[in-house]
Amino acid sequence: MEAKHEIYMENMISKIENRLMQYVQVTSQTARQAELIDAMRYSLEAGGKRIRPVLVLEFCRMCGGTDEQAMAAACALEMVHTFSLIHDDLPEMDNDDYRRGKPSCHKQFGHAVALQAGDALLTEAFGTVIRDPVLEPEIKVELMKILADETGAAGMIGGQIMDMSYVTRTDVTLDELKAMVSAKTGALIRGACQMGCIAAFAPLEKIMLAQQYGEKLGMAFQIVDDILDVTGSLETLGKPVGSDAEEGKTTFVTLMGLEKAKAYAEKLTWEAEEILQQFADHAFLLDLTRELLTREK
Amino acid sequence: MEAKHEIYMENMISKIENRLMQYVQVTSQTARQAELIDAMRYSLEAGGKRIRPVLVLEFCRMCGGTDEQAMAAACALEMVHTFSLIHDDLPEMDNDDYRRGKPSCHKQFGHAVALQAGDALLTEAFGTVIRDPVLEPEIKVELMKILADETGAAGMIGGQIMDMSYVTRTDVTLDELKAMVSAKTGALIRGACQMGCIAAFAPLEKIMLAQQYGEKLGMAFQIVDDILDVTGSLETLGKPVGSDAEEGKTTFVTLMGLEKAKAYAEKLTWEAEEILQQFADHAFLLDLTRELLTREK
Repeated sequence: MEAKHEIYMENMISKIENRLMQYVQVTSQTARQAELIDAMRYSLEAGGKRIRPVLVLEFCRMCGGTDEQAMAAACALEMVHTFSLIHDDLPEMDNDDYRRGKPSCHKQFGHAVALQAGDALLTEAFGTVIRDPVLEPEIKVELMKILADETGAAGMIGGQIMDMSYVTRTDVTLDELKAMVSAKTGALIRGACQMGCIAAFAPLEKIMLAQQYGEKLGMAFQIVDDILDVTGSLETLGKPVGSDAEEGKTTFVTLMGLEKAKAYAEKLTWEAEEILQQFADHAFLLDLTRELLTREK
Repeated sequence: MEAKHEIYMENMISKIENRLMQYVQVTSQTARQAELIDAMRYSLEAGGKRIRPVLVLEFCRMCGGTDEQAMAAACALEMVHTFSLIHDDLPEMDNDDYRRGKPSCHKQFGHAVALQAGDALLTEAFGTVIRDPVLEPEIKVELMKILADETGAAGMIGGQIMDMSYVTRTDVTLDELKAMVSAKTGALIRGACQMGCIAAFAPLEKIMLAQQYGEKLGMAFQIVDDILDVTGSLETLGKPVGSDAEEGKTTFVTLMGLEKAKAYAEKLTWEAEEILQQFADHAFLLDLTRELLTREK
């Protein structure tokens, strides 16, 4: 990524992280409620790429909106993403003790608090949009329609359920894998792009383009994840290489082979870049889209 | 309860239950996603008193609104209530294998599906209000503001967290118990009363009265629960008597004694009835309020 874009992105992420901490604060609560808030903030602070909120801010900006218009939607999506990671790590799901090199939420705060911190983050995601002082009610409802659709049984949660059922199957087809990834990984990324446009009062045509871009970016993102699980190193990745193969998981690499998977991710990235050309002032996002394809972690 | 009110309430509950099943339906999903929807419907169908949705419909009607205006909010609250029961029953929380005489959601569908069925119900609660074809965006946002506030870290979820920390303490004070119950049990009941008024475009003064009524009703409801745990029978209650004492739980009965607890529930009920007098056409709710005090299960 270009140096000026790196600085630009760092500034954007710092704004998002500050706002996330403002949204989730201890008010006059008991010690145990304060622990709940601590757990929510712990997982929000754990970081990650912040792709979803960055996409919200960028699509809003490219459609002529301000960061202020987009910030509630951006943070709401990051809260939903974080809630899903907390619940994913619980023993009944993936049973992961670590997340991004730190103890996972339930290891740090106990299972019950982690479960409820996830629940509270999902609630706060909607609450954050609802309580925003800038947005009009019509826009809030439009934003939350995407948020609810892309999070729920037909979106991310539905995708996780599909993913779980595929772990025990050896005959998952490429179409099934694509449908699962489109829901599990794609839903919030598509949602982010659309919500950015909606926050800027963009016309339906732009929202549809953003959705298509998000679909392609989300799919490419997952393919690169699958590739890195084979070609990456523990050092850059921060997690064991080859864990997919060890679990017998069906991935784009197991179904297509490494070279075809790489070519498919390249094709999707190229198509996503094509769509971006139809938005003004797209240089940063063009750079980020390419960066996500060539990333090493 | 008067016979005509019983029939009236049965009709209302039947309307609510039909609508809940309409809101949560399998569309074109995979088998595993269908199982998620099944789990959501299983827990929604498990029944219970349906107090929260009934309160929404009644406050809406008493403020001059129609059932149609109130139905999304009514079902949303029942979805949040049901989500909280599913997560409450999970091993990391109360670890209950049965709920209302049927296997709890995770016993029937497995832990992972139950966890996500709860997550999806919480998401659908907001989705149901968001997608309502009748309500104006301003009203939707006002309804969801209450929904998010009363569900989140300062509401029901915060109350559950307090409750869990009180299980291991023997020095919980009456003020602490009241604050916990006001959050854990009171939040959604207060929310129901307020949301009914909001759906009917009632003035702030009426919303405030509804909130006060809900606060008193919720507290009385919990005290009666505590009393029944001591005086009830397995037969009428459908669960073991004395389970609170066995767990060493602090309740209104352990702190006040049986007679004072009864008198306090009576006082709160009387005050709630007083508030109802300020609403038109309150005969049914007056009857229900009294019924909840004298119930045997």
